[in-house]
Amino acid sequence: MHVEPSPLKTHAAIRDARRRGLRIGCVPTMGALHPGHVSLVQRARAECDFVVATIFVNPTQFGPNEDFSKYPRTLEADLEMCRAAGADLVFTPQISEMYAADAETIVRVTKLSTVLEGAHRPGHFDGVTTVVTKLFQITEPDLAYFGQKDFQQQLIIRRMVLDLNIPVTVVTCPIIRESDGLAMSSRNRYLSAADRAVAAEIFQALQLAEQLARESLAAPAEIAERMRAHLEATGTMQVQYATVADPQTLAPLETWQRGTSGVALIAAKVGTTRLIDNLLLEF
Amino acid sequence: MHVEPSPLKTHAAIRDARRRGLRIGCVPTMGALHPGHVSLVQRARAECDFVVATIFVNPTQFGPNEDFSKYPRTLEADLEMCRAAGADLVFTPQISEMYAADAETIVRVTKLSTVLEGAHRPGHFDGVTTVVTKLFQITEPDLAYFGQKDFQQQLIIRRMVLDLNIPVTVVTCPIIRESDGLAMSSRNRYLSAADRAVAAEIFQALQLAEQLARESLAAPAEIAERMRAHLEATGTMQVQYATVADPQTLAPLETWQRGTSGVALIAAKVGTTRLIDNLLLEF
Repeated sequence: MHVEPSPLKTHAAIRDARRRGLRIGCVPTMGALHPGHVSLVQRARAECDFVVATIFVNPTQFGPNEDFSKYPRTLEADLEMCRAAGADLVFTPQISEMYAADAETIVRVTKLSTVLEGAHRPGHFDGVTTVVTKLFQITEPDLAYFGQKDFQQQLIIRRMVLDLNIPVTVVTCPIIRESDGLAMSSRNRYLSAADRAVAAEIFQALQLAEQLARESLAAPAEIAERMRAHLEATGTMQVQYATVADPQTLAPLETWQRGTSGVALIAAKVGTTRLIDNLLLEF
Repeated sequence: MHVEPSPLKTHAAIRDARRRGLRIGCVPTMGALHPGHVSLVQRARAECDFVVATIFVNPTQFGPNEDFSKYPRTLEADLEMCRAAGADLVFTPQISEMYAADAETIVRVTKLSTVLEGAHRPGHFDGVTTVVTKLFQITEPDLAYFGQKDFQQQLIIRRMVLDLNIPVTVVTCPIIRESDGLAMSSRNRYLSAADRAVAAEIFQALQLAEQLARESLAAPAEIAERMRAHLEATGTMQVQYATVADPQTLAPLETWQRGTSGVALIAAKVGTTRLIDNLLLEF
């Protein structure tokens, strides 16, 4: 496995692989890898000939009051996980190599970026779409792998890829969970033991939503309220949103109709740690 | 020469050429071709193995009060000029194939896009950078050719290519002029005979700027004033800007210093026709 910080050399290595007729898979990450990320690299390994993972804690997707400076950096462990999962190349750029001092170009998905996560984290998705465009130009993948955990993110990236004709197929991979259902996240390590126990209620709320939807016991807005009530019953969780939305537009779902699918989405702060999770409601 | 309206088929044809090891050159145009465009195709022909021209009157770069609907469409003549200049492929997409009804992604060069043309044509450069990003993704060129006539445009595209790591080399080609110096433009055909005569004063003003700069007779701001005075002396021209700017930042140049270069830029309306032109001041 090759570890390469240079954008130009990464591009050259991948061009070379492409020239040899290899199918390129890319897994963009911010490092602090966990089994969720590993599942993406493994999926890329199974479907592609040449697998590139990228590790870059992208400053432009963090708000001024967010955790950029204390975001976990665990490069050695990350590289070991990439190696074990079968990556051929890991791209590990420095910030100065990714952003020129006079850089001023942004890629913006104007509507999907403004709701839910976008409403709570202004500018976040501009940072995501801009850096992912850059990573796609550098790594020129045939397929790119994202986790369903960041549901809105994968939707926005799909929209961007379509709108900009970027020649990549976006693959969304299932959420990997702890044994009690907590979605794996690099931020889980911030949780105290008490908060860690409370955090498991997020998945309980999503499962409640699924049960209510499956049994047609409640309209989408009612289900959203039931999720919120479940989370607030913990006494300590600050719910930022709990919604049942259209999985394509993210607009709140109005009614269940034959063939309707939805996605239950939650963002909540547990202690000082902000967690998100979601569950597709498809029957 | 192949004429192809489909983005997917264009992409496939170019991927095939690339797989054969060919060097791809792209010339993005809005049609209504004139010898300026022909010079771009010829340059691409000389430097590349496979030359693609694109003809697309991009609606998103026209303002609501601009000339999108009456922009000249001369497809048959355009194709003949492309053929004669040696294009291998001409990409001629429909609007509906370029913009999905629910498209919502923009590429924005945030600073350079706001001055000069950007100040007079709000949103114009967002349309340009977005469509050029799309054309670059579809045609995946090694080199892309733009005219210096649209000086700010080529600068913005260079900035975007750097900022987004798009693997293309931008080549800027000299302005092609009529015998009296008027820069070739698709919009010149709108000029009445009287306006056509007045329009030639734009190049006269630029040459005045060059002479004053060469002879160090005036500071940049004075030269800009002299250009404006020259244009306004026509009695009929409405000057939108006349400036001597830094060729990298487009900020008004303050002083001439050893090794300073500048660019004289003019936008003016002659009758109802808006014309732009520029001249590099490098000594």
